Amino acid sequence: MAQQKATNITWHDGFVTREERTANMNQKGCTLWMTGLSASGKSTVAVALEQVLLQRGKHAFRLDGDNIRFGLNKNLGFSAEDRTENIRRIGEVSKLFADAGVITIASFISPYAADRDQARKLHEEAGLNFVEVYVNIPLAVAEERDPKGLYKKARAGEIKGFTGIDDPYEEPKNAEILLPTHELSVEESVQVILDYLDANGYFTV
Amino acid sequence: MAQQKATNITWHDGFVTREERTANMNQKGCTLWMTGLSASGKSTVAVALEQVLLQRGKHAFRLDGDNIRFGLNKNLGFSAEDRTENIRRIGEVSKLFADAGVITIASFISPYAADRDQARKLHEEAGLNFVEVYVNIPLAVAEERDPKGLYKKARAGEIKGFTGIDDPYEEPKNAEILLPTHELSVEESVQVILDYLDANGYFTV
Repeated sequence: MAQQKATNITWHDGFVTREERTANMNQKGCTLWMTGLSASGKSTVAVALEQVLLQRGKHAFRLDGDNIRFGLNKNLGFSAEDRTENIRRIGEVSKLFADAGVITIASFISPYAADRDQARKLHEEAGLNFVEVYVNIPLAVAEERDPKGLYKKARAGEIKGFTGIDDPYEEPKNAEILLPTHELSVEESVQVILDYLDANGYFTV
Repeated sequence: MAQQKATNITWHDGFVTREERTANMNQKGCTLWMTGLSASGKSTVAVALEQVLLQRGKHAFRLDGDNIRFGLNKNLGFSAEDRTENIRRIGEVSKLFADAGVITIASFISPYAADRDQARKLHEEAGLNFVEVYVNIPLAVAEERDPKGLYKKARAGEIKGFTGIDDPYEEPKNAEILLPTHELSVEESVQVILDYLDANGYFTV
Protein backbone atom coordinates (compact mmCIF):
# COMPACT_ATOMS: atom_id res chain seq x y z
CA MET A 1 0.00 0.00 0.00
CA ALA A 2 1.63 3.20 -1.17
CA GLN A 3 1.35 6.12 1.20
CA GLN A 4 2.15 9.61 0.11
CA LYS A 5 2.22 12.46 2.54
CA ALA A 6 2.29 16.16 1.88
CA THR A 7 0.40 18.99 3.48
CA ASN A 8 -1.61 16.44 5.45
CA ILE A 9 -2.91 14.66 2.37
CA THR A 10 -2.66 10.90 2.31
CA TRP A 11 -4.26 8.20 0.23
CA HIS A 12 -3.86 4.55 -0.60
CA ASP A 13 -3.65 2.67 -3.87
CA GLY A 14 -6.94 1.82 -5.46
CA PHE A 15 -10.40 3.11 -4.75
CA VAL A 16 -12.35 3.90 -1.63
CA THR A 17 -13.40 0.51 -0.23
CA ARG A 18 -16.96 -0.39 0.60
CA GLU A 19 -15.95 -0.58 4.27
CA GLU A 20 -14.59 2.96 4.18
CA ARG A 21 -17.76 4.13 2.47
CA THR A 22 -20.00 2.42 5.01
CA ALA A 23 -18.06 3.91 7.92
CA ASN A 24 -18.16 7.35 6.30
CA MET A 25 -21.93 7.25 5.77
CA ASN A 26 -22.64 5.45 9.06
CA GLN A 27 -25.04 3.15 7.22
CA LYS A 28 -25.06 0.51 4.55
CA GLY A 29 -26.06 1.73 1.13
CA CYS A 30 -28.94 -0.03 -0.60
CA THR A 31 -31.75 0.44 -3.05
CA LEU A 32 -35.33 0.29 -1.85
CA TRP A 33 -37.22 -0.41 -5.05
CA MET A 34 -40.85 0.60 -4.58
CA THR A 35 -43.12 -0.94 -7.16
CA GLY A 36 -46.90 -0.91 -7.49
CA LEU A 37 -49.88 0.39 -9.40
CA SER A 38 -50.44 4.04 -10.12
CA ALA A 39 -52.09 5.56 -7.01
CA SER A 40 -50.87 2.72 -4.79
CA GLY A 41 -49.14 5.22 -2.51
CA LYS A 42 -45.51 4.62 -3.53
CA SER A 43 -44.57 8.28 -3.69
CA THR A 44 -46.41 9.28 -0.53
CA VAL A 45 -44.52 6.67 1.46
CA ALA A 46 -41.23 7.43 -0.32
CA VAL A 47 -41.45 11.16 0.44
CA ALA A 48 -42.25 10.55 4.12
CA LEU A 49 -39.58 7.85 4.45
CA GLU A 50 -36.88 10.10 3.00
CA GLN A 51 -37.70 12.82 5.52
CA VAL A 52 -37.78 10.46 8.46
CA LEU A 53 -34.44 8.90 7.50
CA LEU A 54 -32.84 12.35 7.28
CA GLN A 55 -34.28 13.37 10.65
CA ARG A 56 -32.51 10.33 12.05
CA GLY A 57 -29.21 11.41 10.56
CA LYS A 58 -29.32 8.86 7.78
CA HIS A 59 -28.55 9.65 4.16
CA ALA A 60 -31.34 8.94 1.72
CA PHE A 61 -32.29 10.10 -1.75
CA ARG A 62 -35.41 9.57 -3.78
CA LEU A 63 -35.48 8.75 -7.47
CA ASP A 64 -38.90 9.15 -9.03
CA GLY A 65 -40.69 10.36 -12.11
CA ASP A 66 -40.15 13.99 -11.19
CA ASN A 67 -36.38 13.88 -11.22
CA ILE A 68 -35.89 11.11 -13.80
CA ARG A 69 -38.54 11.45 -16.50
CA PHE A 70 -37.77 15.14 -17.00
CA GLY A 71 -34.05 14.69 -16.69
CA LEU A 72 -32.01 11.58 -17.44
CA ASN A 73 -34.86 9.86 -19.25
CA LYS A 74 -36.44 12.79 -21.02
CA ASN A 75 -35.49 11.28 -24.37
CA LEU A 76 -37.58 8.16 -23.72
CA GLY A 77 -41.23 7.60 -24.59
CA PHE A 78 -43.65 4.87 -23.63
CA SER A 79 -42.98 2.15 -26.20
CA ALA A 80 -42.15 -1.26 -24.76
CA GLU A 81 -38.50 -0.72 -25.68
CA ASP A 82 -38.39 2.71 -24.07
CA ARG A 83 -40.09 1.45 -20.91
CA THR A 84 -37.45 -1.21 -20.52
CA GLU A 85 -34.67 1.31 -21.16
CA ASN A 86 -36.33 3.65 -18.63
CA ILE A 87 -36.14 1.04 -15.90
CA ARG A 88 -32.67 -0.11 -17.00
CA ARG A 89 -31.26 3.40 -16.57
CA ILE A 90 -33.02 3.83 -13.22
CA GLY A 91 -31.55 0.53 -12.08
CA GLU A 92 -28.06 1.69 -13.06
CA VAL A 93 -28.44 5.06 -11.32
CA SER A 94 -29.87 3.38 -8.19
CA LYS A 95 -26.85 1.11 -8.19
CA LEU A 96 -24.50 4.12 -8.30
CA PHE A 97 -26.31 5.73 -5.35
CA ALA A 98 -26.29 2.47 -3.37
CA ASP A 99 -22.57 2.17 -4.15
CA ALA A 100 -22.13 5.69 -2.79
CA GLY A 101 -23.59 4.44 0.50
CA VAL A 102 -26.94 6.17 0.11
CA ILE A 103 -30.26 4.60 1.09
CA THR A 104 -31.78 5.01 -2.34
CA ILE A 105 -35.56 5.08 -2.67
CA ALA A 106 -36.58 4.34 -6.27
CA SER A 107 -40.31 4.82 -6.71
CA PHE A 108 -41.65 3.68 -10.09
CA ILE A 109 -44.62 1.60 -11.21
CA SER A 110 -42.11 -0.74 -12.92
CA PRO A 111 -44.82 -3.22 -13.95
CA TYR A 112 -42.64 -5.85 -15.63
CA ALA A 113 -40.96 -8.50 -13.53
CA ALA A 114 -38.08 -8.94 -15.97
CA ASP A 115 -37.14 -5.27 -15.72
CA ARG A 116 -37.23 -5.31 -11.91
CA ASP A 117 -35.24 -8.52 -11.84
CA GLN A 118 -32.63 -6.95 -14.07
CA ALA A 119 -32.29 -4.02 -11.65
CA ARG A 120 -31.90 -6.50 -8.79
CA LYS A 121 -29.30 -8.48 -10.72
CA LEU A 122 -27.23 -5.36 -11.40
CA HIS A 123 -27.05 -4.68 -7.68
CA GLU A 124 -26.40 -8.22 -6.57
CA GLU A 125 -23.60 -8.72 -9.08
CA ALA A 126 -21.90 -5.70 -7.54
CA GLY A 127 -22.47 -6.96 -4.00
CA LEU A 128 -25.04 -4.26 -3.33
CA ASN A 129 -28.34 -4.73 -1.56
CA PHE A 130 -31.63 -4.49 -3.42
CA VAL A 131 -34.83 -4.46 -1.41
CA GLU A 132 -38.04 -4.82 -3.38
CA VAL A 133 -40.98 -3.09 -1.73
CA TYR A 134 -44.25 -4.16 -3.25
CA VAL A 135 -46.93 -1.58 -2.53
CA ASN A 136 -49.74 -4.03 -3.00
CA ILE A 137 -53.25 -2.70 -3.06
CA PRO A 138 -56.16 -4.10 -5.05
CA LEU A 139 -56.70 -2.48 -8.43
CA ALA A 140 -60.21 -1.49 -7.28
CA VAL A 141 -58.73 0.60 -4.46
CA ALA A 142 -56.24 2.32 -6.75
CA GLU A 143 -59.00 2.99 -9.22
CA GLU A 144 -61.23 4.48 -6.54
CA ARG A 145 -58.41 6.75 -5.30
CA ASP A 146 -57.52 7.88 -8.83
CA PRO A 147 -56.15 11.27 -7.66
CA LYS A 148 -55.22 12.40 -11.16
CA GLY A 149 -58.22 10.88 -12.95
CA LEU A 150 -55.90 8.62 -14.95
CA TYR A 151 -57.82 5.39 -14.39
CA LYS A 152 -60.98 7.10 -15.56
CA LYS A 153 -59.25 8.22 -18.74
CA ALA A 154 -57.77 4.75 -19.26
CA ARG A 155 -61.20 3.12 -18.84
CA ALA A 156 -62.57 5.61 -21.35
CA GLY A 157 -59.80 4.67 -23.77
CA GLU A 158 -58.29 8.14 -23.68
CA ILE A 159 -55.00 6.76 -22.34
CA LYS A 160 -53.62 3.61 -23.95
CA GLY A 161 -51.35 1.03 -22.34
CA PHE A 162 -52.23 2.01 -18.78
CA THR A 163 -50.89 -0.37 -16.16
CA GLY A 164 -53.65 -2.42 -14.57
CA ILE A 165 -56.20 -1.55 -17.26
CA ASP A 166 -54.91 -2.48 -20.69
CA ASP A 167 -51.30 -3.20 -19.77
CA PRO A 168 -50.29 -5.81 -17.18
CA TYR A 169 -48.85 -5.30 -13.74
CA GLU A 170 -46.73 -8.35 -13.04
CA GLU A 171 -46.78 -8.87 -9.29
CA PRO A 172 -43.48 -9.44 -7.49
CA LYS A 173 -43.23 -13.00 -6.23
CA ASN A 174 -40.38 -12.49 -3.78
CA ALA A 175 -40.55 -8.89 -2.60
CA GLU A 176 -38.67 -8.35 0.64
CA ILE A 177 -41.36 -6.00 1.93
CA LEU A 178 -45.12 -5.87 1.32
CA LEU A 179 -46.95 -2.61 1.91
CA PRO A 180 -50.74 -2.93 1.66
CA THR A 181 -51.34 0.81 1.95
CA HIS A 182 -55.11 0.35 2.04
CA GLU A 183 -54.58 -1.33 5.42
CA LEU A 184 -51.60 0.66 6.69
CA SER A 185 -51.32 4.38 7.42
CA VAL A 186 -48.35 6.27 5.99
CA GLU A 187 -46.75 6.23 9.44
CA GLU A 188 -47.19 2.49 9.66
CA SER A 189 -45.82 1.98 6.15
CA VAL A 190 -42.73 4.02 6.96
CA GLN A 191 -42.30 2.08 10.18
CA VAL A 192 -42.45 -1.25 8.34
CA ILE A 193 -39.54 -0.15 6.14
CA LEU A 194 -37.54 1.30 9.04
CA ASP A 195 -38.01 -1.94 10.97
CA TYR A 196 -36.80 -3.95 7.98
CA LEU A 197 -33.69 -1.78 7.56
CA ASP A 198 -32.98 -1.94 11.28
CA ALA A 199 -33.48 -5.71 11.55
CA ASN A 200 -31.21 -6.28 8.56
CA GLY A 201 -28.34 -4.19 9.87
CA TYR A 202 -28.51 -1.25 7.47
CA PHE A 203 -28.14 1.23 10.32
CA THR A 204 -25.24 -0.45 12.02
CA VAL A 205 -21.74 -0.31 10.55
CA MET B 1 -47.50 22.65 7.21
CA ALA B 2 -49.22 19.38 8.08
CA GLN B 3 -47.67 17.40 10.89
CA GLN B 4 -48.58 13.81 11.52
CA LYS B 5 -47.27 11.93 14.51
CA ALA B 6 -47.30 8.24 15.26
CA THR B 7 -44.66 5.98 16.73
CA ASN B 8 -42.24 8.89 16.63
CA ILE B 9 -42.58 9.41 12.91
CA THR B 10 -43.12 12.96 11.71
CA TRP B 11 -42.83 14.67 8.38
CA HIS B 12 -43.86 17.83 6.64
CA ASP B 13 -45.64 18.51 3.39
CA GLY B 14 -43.48 18.51 0.30
CA PHE B 15 -39.99 17.28 -0.20
CA VAL B 16 -36.79 17.43 1.79
CA THR B 17 -35.52 20.99 1.36
CA ARG B 18 -32.03 21.84 0.19
CA GLU B 19 -31.33 23.32 3.64
CA GLU B 20 -32.30 20.06 5.34
CA ARG B 21 -30.14 18.15 2.91
CA THR B 22 -27.15 20.42 3.47
CA ALA B 23 -27.48 20.14 7.25
CA ASN B 24 -27.83 16.36 7.00
CA MET B 25 -24.70 15.97 4.86
CA ASN B 26 -22.76 18.71 6.67
CA GLN B 27 -21.61 20.05 3.33
CA LYS B 28 -22.97 21.66 0.20
CA GLY B 29 -23.51 19.28 -2.69
CA CYS B 30 -21.83 20.13 -5.97
CA THR B 31 -20.36 18.67 -9.10
CA LEU B 32 -16.64 18.90 -9.73
CA TRP B 33 -16.41 18.36 -13.46
CA MET B 34 -12.88 17.27 -14.34
CA THR B 35 -12.11 17.66 -18.01
CA GLY B 36 -8.88 17.23 -19.94
CA LEU B 37 -6.94 15.14 -22.40
CA SER B 38 -6.48 11.40 -22.03
CA ALA B 39 -3.51 10.89 -19.66
CA SER B 40 -3.85 14.39 -18.23
CA GLY B 41 -4.19 12.95 -14.74
CA LYS B 42 -7.93 13.46 -14.17
CA SER B 43 -8.56 10.04 -12.69
CA THR B 44 -5.45 10.00 -10.54
CA VAL B 45 -6.45 13.26 -8.92
CA ALA B 46 -10.12 12.21 -8.69
CA VAL B 47 -9.29 8.95 -6.90
CA ALA B 48 -7.01 10.70 -4.40
CA LEU B 49 -9.47 13.56 -3.86
CA GLU B 50 -12.33 11.18 -3.11
CA GLN B 51 -10.27 9.38 -0.47
CA VAL B 52 -9.09 12.58 1.16
CA LEU B 53 -12.63 13.99 1.31
CA LEU B 54 -13.88 10.82 2.99
CA GLN B 55 -11.01 10.88 5.49
CA ARG B 56 -12.22 14.34 6.43
CA GLY B 57 -15.74 13.08 7.01
CA LYS B 58 -17.09 14.54 3.78
CA HIS B 59 -19.32 12.64 1.38
CA ALA B 60 -17.95 12.28 -2.12
CA PHE B 61 -18.52 9.97 -5.05
CA ARG B 62 -16.67 9.54 -8.29
CA LEU B 63 -18.31 9.08 -11.67
CA ASP B 64 -15.90 7.92 -14.34
CA GLY B 65 -15.56 5.62 -17.29
CA ASP B 66 -15.33 2.55 -15.08
CA ASN B 67 -18.73 2.93 -13.48
CA ILE B 68 -20.54 4.71 -16.34
CA ARG B 69 -19.34 3.28 -19.64
CA PHE B 70 -19.94 -0.28 -18.49
CA GLY B 71 -23.20 0.53 -16.75
CA LEU B 72 -25.59 3.37 -17.50
CA ASN B 73 -23.97 4.17 -20.83
CA LYS B 74 -23.10 0.70 -22.04
CA ASN B 75 -25.55 1.08 -24.91
CA LEU B 76 -23.65 4.07 -26.32
CA GLY B 77 -20.81 4.01 -28.82
CA PHE B 78 -18.44 6.70 -30.00
CA SER B 79 -20.39 8.45 -32.76
CA ALA B 80 -20.76 12.21 -32.33
CA GLU B 81 -24.40 11.67 -31.30
CA ASP B 82 -23.52 9.00 -28.77
CA ARG B 83 -20.69 11.08 -27.31
CA THR B 84 -23.10 13.93 -26.71
CA GLU B 85 -25.67 11.56 -25.17
CA ASN B 86 -22.89 10.09 -23.03
CA ILE B 87 -22.06 13.47 -21.53
CA ARG B 88 -25.75 14.44 -21.29
CA ARG B 89 -26.52 11.41 -19.15
CA ILE B 90 -23.45 11.97 -17.00
CA GLY B 91 -24.52 15.58 -16.50
CA GLU B 92 -27.97 14.43 -15.38
CA VAL B 93 -26.59 11.83 -12.98
CA SER B 94 -24.07 14.33 -11.58
CA LYS B 95 -26.95 16.70 -10.99
CA LEU B 96 -28.86 14.02 -9.04
CA PHE B 97 -25.82 13.36 -6.86
CA ALA B 98 -25.23 17.08 -6.28
CA ASP B 99 -28.92 17.40 -5.38
CA ALA B 100 -28.42 14.57 -2.88
CA GLY B 101 -25.77 16.72 -1.21
CA VAL B 102 -22.81 14.72 -2.43
CA ILE B 103 -19.53 16.26 -3.62
CA THR B 104 -19.65 14.60 -7.00
CA ILE B 105 -16.41 14.12 -8.93
CA ALA B 106 -17.13 13.54 -12.62
CA SER B 107 -13.96 12.63 -14.47
CA PHE B 108 -14.35 12.47 -18.25
CA ILE B 109 -12.35 13.81 -21.18
CA SER B 110 -15.54 15.65 -22.29
CA PRO B 111 -13.78 17.41 -25.16
CA TYR B 112 -16.67 19.49 -26.48
CA ALA B 113 -17.45 22.83 -24.87
CA ALA B 114 -21.13 22.65 -25.79
CA ASP B 115 -21.58 19.35 -23.93
CA ARG B 116 -19.82 20.65 -20.81
CA ASP B 117 -21.81 23.86 -20.94
CA GLN B 118 -25.03 21.86 -21.13
CA ALA B 119 -24.02 19.93 -17.98
CA ARG B 120 -23.30 23.25 -16.25
CA LYS B 121 -26.65 24.68 -17.37
CA LEU B 122 -28.55 21.67 -15.99
CA HIS B 123 -27.01 22.29 -12.58
CA GLU B 124 -27.37 26.04 -12.55
CA GLU B 125 -31.03 25.90 -13.58
CA ALA B 126 -31.64 23.72 -10.53
CA GLY B 127 -29.65 26.03 -8.25
CA LEU B 128 -26.84 23.50 -7.93
CA ASN B 129 -23.15 24.27 -8.08
CA PHE B 130 -21.02 23.16 -11.00
CA VAL B 131 -17.26 23.55 -10.72
CA GLU B 132 -15.30 22.98 -13.90
CA VAL B 133 -11.80 21.66 -13.24
CA TYR B 134 -9.63 21.91 -16.31
CA VAL B 135 -6.72 19.49 -16.05
CA ASN B 136 -4.58 21.42 -18.49
CA ILE B 137 -1.39 19.87 -19.65
CA PRO B 138 0.23 20.29 -23.05
CA LEU B 139 -0.63 17.60 -25.57
CA ALA B 140 3.06 16.77 -25.82
CA VAL B 141 3.17 15.87 -22.13
CA ALA B 142 0.06 13.69 -22.38
CA GLU B 143 1.50 12.01 -25.42
CA GLU B 144 4.78 11.33 -23.67
CA ARG B 145 3.01 9.83 -20.64
CA ASP B 146 0.74 7.67 -22.82
CA PRO B 147 0.30 4.99 -20.12
CA LYS B 148 -1.98 2.84 -22.25
CA GLY B 149 -0.21 3.43 -25.57
CA LEU B 150 -3.35 5.07 -26.97
CA TYR B 151 -1.65 8.14 -28.40
CA LYS B 152 0.80 5.91 -30.21
CA LYS B 153 -2.06 3.94 -31.73
CA ALA B 154 -3.89 7.12 -32.66
CA ARG B 155 -0.77 8.52 -34.36
CA ALA B 156 -0.45 5.24 -36.24
CA GLY B 157 -4.07 5.54 -37.37
CA GLU B 158 -5.09 2.43 -35.45
CA ILE B 159 -7.56 4.43 -33.36
CA LYS B 160 -9.76 6.96 -35.11
CA GLY B 161 -11.29 10.09 -33.62
CA PHE B 162 -8.85 10.30 -30.73
CA THR B 163 -9.08 13.51 -28.73
CA GLY B 164 -6.07 15.74 -29.33
CA ILE B 165 -4.91 13.82 -32.39
CA ASP B 166 -7.67 13.65 -34.98
CA ASP B 167 -10.55 14.94 -32.87
CA PRO B 168 -10.50 18.33 -31.14
CA TYR B 169 -10.25 19.09 -27.44
CA GLU B 170 -12.07 22.37 -26.96
CA GLU B 171 -10.41 24.11 -24.04
CA PRO B 172 -12.61 25.51 -21.27
CA LYS B 173 -12.58 29.30 -21.30
CA ASN B 174 -14.00 29.84 -17.83
CA ALA B 175 -13.03 26.85 -15.72
CA GLU B 176 -13.23 27.57 -12.00
CA ILE B 177 -10.07 25.58 -11.34
CA LEU B 178 -6.97 24.96 -13.46
CA LEU B 179 -4.81 21.94 -12.71
CA PRO B 180 -1.56 21.85 -14.68
CA THR B 181 -0.60 18.40 -13.47
CA HIS B 182 2.77 18.56 -15.19
CA GLU B 183 3.65 21.31 -12.72
CA LEU B 184 1.71 20.09 -9.67
CA SER B 185 2.07 16.86 -7.70
CA VAL B 186 -1.06 14.83 -6.97
CA GLU B 187 -0.99 16.16 -3.39
CA GLU B 188 -0.79 19.72 -4.64
CA SER B 189 -3.60 19.13 -7.14
CA VAL B 190 -5.84 17.73 -4.42
CA GLN B 191 -4.96 20.67 -2.20
CA VAL B 192 -5.91 23.17 -4.91
CA ILE B 193 -9.38 21.63 -5.10
CA LEU B 194 -9.78 21.40 -1.31
CA ASP B 195 -8.76 25.05 -1.00
CA TYR B 196 -11.33 26.04 -3.61
CA LEU B 197 -14.11 24.10 -1.87
CA ASP B 198 -13.12 25.55 1.49
CA ALA B 199 -12.87 29.14 0.24
CA ASN B 200 -16.25 28.86 -1.44
CA GLY B 201 -18.08 27.56 1.61
CA TYR B 202 -18.76 23.99 0.51
CA PHE B 203 -17.63 22.63 3.87
CA THR B 204 -19.61 25.04 6.03
CA VAL B 205 -23.37 24.69 6.39
